[in-house]
Amino acid sequence: MPKVKIPRLRERLESLYREAGLNQRDAAVLSEIIIDAEAAGKPTHGLIRVAPQLKRLRDRAHRDGVWLIDEPGRALYDGRDGLGYLVAHAVAEKALAMLERSAVAIIGCRGATHTGQIGYFARKVALAGHLSLWFANCSPLAAPYGATEPVLGTNPVAAGLPHEPEPIVADLATTATTHGDCRVAMDAGGQIPEGTALDSSGKPTTDPEAALKGGCLLPFGGHKGYALAVVVQLLATALTGATAVPGSLSDYGLSVIAMRRDILVDSAAYDSITSELTGAIKAAKPAVAGQPPLLPGERSAANRTRSSHEGIEITRRLYAQIFGDQPD
Amino acid sequence: MPKVKIPRLRERLESLYREAGLNQRDAAVLSEIIIDAEAAGKPTHGLIRVAPQLKRLRDRAHRDGVWLIDEPGRALYDGRDGLGYLVAHAVAEKALAMLERSAVAIIGCRGATHTGQIGYFARKVALAGHLSLWFANCSPLAAPYGATEPVLGTNPVAAGLPHEPEPIVADLATTATTHGDCRVAMDAGGQIPEGTALDSSGKPTTDPEAALKGGCLLPFGGHKGYALAVVVQLLATALTGATAVPGSLSDYGLSVIAMRRDILVDSAAYDSITSELTGAIKAAKPAVAGQPPLLPGERSAANRTRSSHEGIEITRRLYAQIFGDQPD
Repeated sequence: MPKVKIPRLRERLESLYREAGLNQRDAAVLSEIIIDAEAAGKPTHGLIRVAPQLKRLRDRAHRDGVWLIDEPGRALYDGRDGLGYLVAHAVAEKALAMLERSAVAIIGCRGATHTGQIGYFARKVALAGHLSLWFANCSPLAAPYGATEPVLGTNPVAAGLPHEPEPIVADLATTATTHGDCRVAMDAGGQIPEGTALDSSGKPTTDPEAALKGGCLLPFGGHKGYALAVVVQLLATALTGATAVPGSLSDYGLSVIAMRRDILVDSAAYDSITSELTGAIKAAKPAVAGQPPLLPGERSAANRTRSSHEGIEITRRLYAQIFGDQPD
Repeated sequence: MPKVKIPRLRERLESLYREAGLNQRDAAVLSEIIIDAEAAGKPTHGLIRVAPQLKRLRDRAHRDGVWLIDEPGRALYDGRDGLGYLVAHAVAEKALAMLERSAVAIIGCRGATHTGQIGYFARKVALAGHLSLWFANCSPLAAPYGATEPVLGTNPVAAGLPHEPEPIVADLATTATTHGDCRVAMDAGGQIPEGTALDSSGKPTTDPEAALKGGCLLPFGGHKGYALAVVVQLLATALTGATAVPGSLSDYGLSVIAMRRDILVDSAAYDSITSELTGAIKAAKPAVAGQPPLLPGERSAANRTRSSHEGIEITRRLYAQIFGDQPD
């Protein structure tokens, strides 16, 4: 696969987004998020999203969001079904601004559409020294535990916790596989793992198309993942006023709980306890000799470092789509 | 197994706790929590805990906790390694009091020891109309993903969300099996499920004794449950000043994020969106005809109703331990 250096990719993406109607600031923000997904090794949230975003921009389906509540400690945003990545970015920026004045920020958002890799935003807040928890829903893809038709979204939960040299970032769909994973498998003509989806007749399937078209995804970890999925969907919708069971790319919800790490103890105590725990994890006897356990977010961080040196591998199809010609 | 009506059990437990040195109020609180665990069908947090609690009381190992911070919106408790059930109850009561004056309550706790079924407290807050998230850690029982020795606790996360007629309550250990499950399996001479634990040599085991003595439990849902477990342990310790990797029953941490359900939208909107989602879940086509999916907390609620009519089944051994004689 061709490799593209990040600065070249950034320049090209910014230009595409500007041509489609975004201002320079938003074009830069969106490019950065897309590139980070690729650099971190999460292509399901990367370049494959560019074409649909450009289409929505050209169709004038994107509007700027508005703040419905903007008070110390609490805020509510209406993303007005704009590009979800920009909506989530506005929420993250608001969290950072709010934490300059209060120790806690509760931010709800409706009209969010697809917010992508919410761990990106949790990491952003953590890099500024703050904790945050993120809860997002989407249109029905997943069956409740004990059911065979979709009601719940893939409903990711993300957490970002300050830690040196790299924040602790957990970012997980509450389903055993995701819409993005299925799309990638479909593109590659592959299968999804057993036990992750049902077809339209309610039978287990490993065919990603059968899962997405008339079938459903299953919760990860059985009833536990299901319980988390329900909690995530309620926090994303009932707390924010978003639609309980939304249609595709329409009024998804997002909620964020962010706080200063020194809200109860001083930062030095927070940092020291965090280092002690992560040190103990890294020192645990590994299952495979020489491969110590990874901290949540550590693999992505290593991928980012490699990508910044070596560039990002992209398929010929995506290359042609983005650069309009074939790689050398 | 003999059945005991709840009022008789309550009277007996209160009397035992009082004789061991608790005042009437704490004796009533502790009895209620123990009985609720049994009534809800979670015996791992019920009557088997009474004997060790009585021993700790008689050994004068229980002290009342103290509030280190008690301000609008944030509070920090030192449970001073007292009985964890009473420590968590004090935290829940504080959350309820704080939410009368502010829309959010962030409460940290150190010195918590074993807080038991934290979903009990999340449900208590939800019954008063508020949302809460609970994060608790304990001494090392679980291996990090990719390791073969314990560093993390079983690290439960619980959420309580107001809903009529019964709150939505999720309460899950981030391990595939728990210390309590292993103890119950050991008592019964049984096994734990495959894929939930390793023995002291790092090999998979279904022997609960091998898991607890020199072995380790595994995260639920692979790397996802592991990521949650790390987040839970950091929220419980780094945020509160509790020990990063505590010894047995020593300085466990607990943190709670509680908020009014009308913090961003009015209560009627919250209630209506919640009902719409839960209605859609209950209406989803079931995997087994006639058995609609259960909402998180629904099975426990049904168990409670049955127990209140029929009483609680207890083993002859526990009956003898608590009533000092054999059942009729």
